[in-house]
Amino acid sequence: MLESMSQKYQITKYANGRFRHVEDVIVNEFPLTVFVNNVEFATMVVTPTHFEEMVIGFLASEGVIRTYSDILSLNIDEDRGYAYVELKVNSTTNQQYYSKRFIGSCCGKSRQFYFHNDARTARTSMSKTKISASQSIYLMNEMQNSSEVFQETGGVHNAALCTPDEVIAVRTDIGRHNALDKLFGYSILNNVSVRDKIIVFSGRISSEVLLKAAKIGVGIVLSKSAPTDLAIKLAQDLNITAVGFIRGESFNVYSCPERIID
Amino acid sequence: MLESMSQKYQITKYANGRFRHVEDVIVNEFPLTVFVNNVEFATMVVTPTHFEEMVIGFLASEGVIRTYSDILSLNIDEDRGYAYVELKVNSTTNQQYYSKRFIGSCCGKSRQFYFHNDARTARTSMSKTKISASQSIYLMNEMQNSSEVFQETGGVHNAALCTPDEVIAVRTDIGRHNALDKLFGYSILNNVSVRDKIIVFSGRISSEVLLKAAKIGVGIVLSKSAPTDLAIKLAQDLNITAVGFIRGESFNVYSCPERIID
Repeated sequence: MLESMSQKYQITKYANGRFRHVEDVIVNEFPLTVFVNNVEFATMVVTPTHFEEMVIGFLASEGVIRTYSDILSLNIDEDRGYAYVELKVNSTTNQQYYSKRFIGSCCGKSRQFYFHNDARTARTSMSKTKISASQSIYLMNEMQNSSEVFQETGGVHNAALCTPDEVIAVRTDIGRHNALDKLFGYSILNNVSVRDKIIVFSGRISSEVLLKAAKIGVGIVLSKSAPTDLAIKLAQDLNITAVGFIRGESFNVYSCPERIID
Repeated sequence: MLESMSQKYQITKYANGRFRHVEDVIVNEFPLTVFVNNVEFATMVVTPTHFEEMVIGFLASEGVIRTYSDILSLNIDEDRGYAYVELKVNSTTNQQYYSKRFIGSCCGKSRQFYFHNDARTARTSMSKTKISASQSIYLMNEMQNSSEVFQETGGVHNAALCTPDEVIAVRTDIGRHNALDKLFGYSILNNVSVRDKIIVFSGRISSEVLLKAAKIGVGIVLSKSAPTDLAIKLAQDLNITAVGFIRGESFNVYSCPERIID
């Protein structure tokens, strides 16, 4: 399967009290299995675009790689949905920890991590970037207007890497975490400095989304939707500005409001 | 932590060109780690309600248990977020397969499964249940009106188990799969016959959602949102009626339309 976000289907539509056969556009969903040094590592279900960014961002997010130079080779079989990654070192020896619960006990320090891997990988933000209210609203509109597949199918999440003034890259996926992993892969592949950047996101700010933003390394996350309490605690802890419900001319700031200026 | 879906936070709201400090209601998110026969099995992040249903539904969905009687004991430490499950048999010996990719190769049969576990657990529906257009619209409205936390926070998914005439149980979670697992747990705990039931869901019909419905055993899934192509293929393959975009007085039928009657 080559890159394609959606396809046409014959469906039955009910409207105005009757059934009709019509053509509809449906978003694609595709399983992608990653092998690291010949060991099956994970299978994710993705919107089939930007496979290389997806794999690189996923591995960086999992703490398997830190930079592009950690990868010796990356081959993707798009028809079967397999990605073969060869690393310089055997980073997967700690695979048992990736999904193991992190049990913080020392010093009364109350980090909100629940996975070992997140505790190793997520970074406290040192970002000095600030953004105005009108820039925040502008970036959300720019991202949403750029995504045709969302407007066609209603079934995907958008994520964008931005400066305060403009959108640099938009990635789209049925999985909220995938859209962010693709952006992470984009930033690694293109060696983009992220500390002064902003992530704009169409979906809810869950703890997973906030942790992805911390791993990518940005200091500001702007969302169209609601955060969770755990995401707010993580944002406070990691010094990340979390903004939600950007709709029309209003929004809510949930953490580190000093980065949002008038 | 005892059961609570949301809590109050002080936030900074931007509206009408100025910033104000206001109180807001934020949905809770809570890590729950399941130990099976003293082995750490998985950590999920959930909305902290219905822990027992959540654990039972999750284990059934993963194919670890089939009925409530497979469980010898279930103890939940709600403060720490740990669930300890003792099973009659050591069902976790095949844990290595749960997230392993299922590689179908024989006979040209093109099942769309991508995990071993799903191929073992998901059932082709034999449901004879039918539902009318007006019943479908009624059930969606009933479910959405019943969920106060959604109306307060905007940050959760609702899932309901229904007959064609009425809603039996509604479960709410920040995770779409969790809301369905809680329903699965409800049906197992209460020994509800599911074949003649319907699942109503607020979120998108991804392949994961469709597979959960197949595992629970219903023949009809009604959603407020869009399906993916893989979910439609699975629905056709598993003989499940998938209905999406139930909004106002219209909706779309994506598979097995014979169960939707005029």
